[in-house]
Amino acid sequence: MKTVKIGLLGLGNIGTGTYKTLEMNKVHMVEATGLNFEISKILERDTTKKRDIAVCQEQFTQDPDDIFKDPEIDIVIELLGGIEPATTFMLDAMKHKKSVVTANKAAVAANFEKLTETAKANQVEFRYEASVGGGIPIINALTTVLQANEFVEIQGILNGTTNYILTQMTEFGLQYEDVLKKAQELGFAEADPTADVEGIDVANKLSILISIMFKKYVAPKNIPTKGISSITQQDIEAAKAEDSKIKLLAYAHKNGSHLEYSVKPMVLKNSHPLASVSNEFNAVYVTGNAVGEVMFYGKGAGPLPTGSAVMGDVLEIAKKLYNK
Amino acid sequence: MKTVKIGLLGLGNIGTGTYKTLEMNKVHMVEATGLNFEISKILERDTTKKRDIAVCQEQFTQDPDDIFKDPEIDIVIELLGGIEPATTFMLDAMKHKKSVVTANKAAVAANFEKLTETAKANQVEFRYEASVGGGIPIINALTTVLQANEFVEIQGILNGTTNYILTQMTEFGLQYEDVLKKAQELGFAEADPTADVEGIDVANKLSILISIMFKKYVAPKNIPTKGISSITQQDIEAAKAEDSKIKLLAYAHKNGSHLEYSVKPMVLKNSHPLASVSNEFNAVYVTGNAVGEVMFYGKGAGPLPTGSAVMGDVLEIAKKLYNK
Repeated sequence: MKTVKIGLLGLGNIGTGTYKTLEMNKVHMVEATGLNFEISKILERDTTKKRDIAVCQEQFTQDPDDIFKDPEIDIVIELLGGIEPATTFMLDAMKHKKSVVTANKAAVAANFEKLTETAKANQVEFRYEASVGGGIPIINALTTVLQANEFVEIQGILNGTTNYILTQMTEFGLQYEDVLKKAQELGFAEADPTADVEGIDVANKLSILISIMFKKYVAPKNIPTKGISSITQQDIEAAKAEDSKIKLLAYAHKNGSHLEYSVKPMVLKNSHPLASVSNEFNAVYVTGNAVGEVMFYGKGAGPLPTGSAVMGDVLEIAKKLYNK
Repeated sequence: MKTVKIGLLGLGNIGTGTYKTLEMNKVHMVEATGLNFEISKILERDTTKKRDIAVCQEQFTQDPDDIFKDPEIDIVIELLGGIEPATTFMLDAMKHKKSVVTANKAAVAANFEKLTETAKANQVEFRYEASVGGGIPIINALTTVLQANEFVEIQGILNGTTNYILTQMTEFGLQYEDVLKKAQELGFAEADPTADVEGIDVANKLSILISIMFKKYVAPKNIPTKGISSITQQDIEAAKAEDSKIKLLAYAHKNGSHLEYSVKPMVLKNSHPLASVSNEFNAVYVTGNAVGEVMFYGKGAGPLPTGSAVMGDVLEIAKKLYNK
């Protein structure tokens, strides 16, 4: 049986979750594909941290070329986060004829065209399912089962931290600052929560979805974006009085050749399917001209849900490369 | 530009919806794939019915071999419904090296192994996304993005007719017989509603999902199945009193090597994500050991939603065959 050797860039939270998903479900993956999977090399500075996975020192490297120039590696997983050096590394990997899988929304959103074109020019695969909605199978659904549709609209709850904060404010009548503090203590929000609470993370994800659904690249910085940091308990109460909830929504709508898009807190009637998406859950509500309305719901973050989507992409690429 | 010629078996309700999806979104499909699509031959007895699509007499044939032996056709869509002659036709098409797309849950559930093995032996594609959940992208999600998971459980609302009846009974306090009659008048239920209301249609869909998720074939007739025809307004009231709803659920759960499954009305707490799935909508709630809980929601039937999924499968196959 063929062993598929994989290079991994970054063994942080998501990298460890991906490694664990592979360890946990290795036998199942062999059954599903007839292939054996192994993360053979890992680019990571911190080689001594306790990680609760079976990784040995020989797997670590400090030099990305160790991975890019390894003829045994055809697939590279990028989980460093941030735009650089992640983008440069992904482009380098592609130029060395490696297919690339990433969960890095900031890098994909910032360089969507460059990355997809470089993959095409080098005849390698580039997949980024985990970059939007974590474990939720949204990107692949848009590009396969739903591809026969003209898309009309997307509405998404795409950030678990802000949805958690808004849910807690709604359910327990708390003020924004108090819930944020609690979320930080529980590890649901970062010490510097700006990217989440100001909607920047959601704008990255919406940029990627717009590229796929409407074949048009809109840079995240060109998406009108408003976060939730100015939402007060009074706003929440006012929505409640109208049988509604406030949600931070990624929104895009196409009308003829006119495309409008935004990230902002919106008031949704409680009867709307997105209104009942609570706490750290994410959901995406898509309208296509043939399928009508479709919704996808699940955990939009976390090491294992994200690892599930990353490994799903790896398995798809491996089936294409080796199971012809 | 390559024109992909397609043979269509059956121009009924779903066949017409598929034809219409292609007409409506042809330009979009060209953009998405770089290929042009055309349904060139149609096996259909009724050639005179008004159908609101641009189809000409020359496209019709009464002889399936006209399609199977046409060297210009690589893809056959089967939308006849029923187990036979649909199964025989699909097997014949495969033996003539045609890839097959179907929405026919009865035929796929009855002959899952035969159909998938014959496709493999003839090195053709066999896709059946539309057979479960209409336009909802569930099958492809299970076999691609979620494939790195060990699946633990599935719960599904997979029949629009019964979900419509139960919703109307719940919202308006009506008895089963009265809602069924109304549903028949509105065209939501068949003159002979047995396959829907007795859960047979759902058992077919659950059989297909079990084959995919748990790599085990369970014939629909071996799935313990109970429909909704004996549900009374008193049952609905009793559920309401417990802040719950009655839903006809497809259920399968794996515990070690033990797999249990059933189709039956179940009482769901209103807080469960499936409880808010109303009327003709379908939803599938899947638990995997890495991704956790994921839900898919949308229209489980209807000509255009089903046509969307059928054409999605056709485009996937065409990209594989012609865009290498």
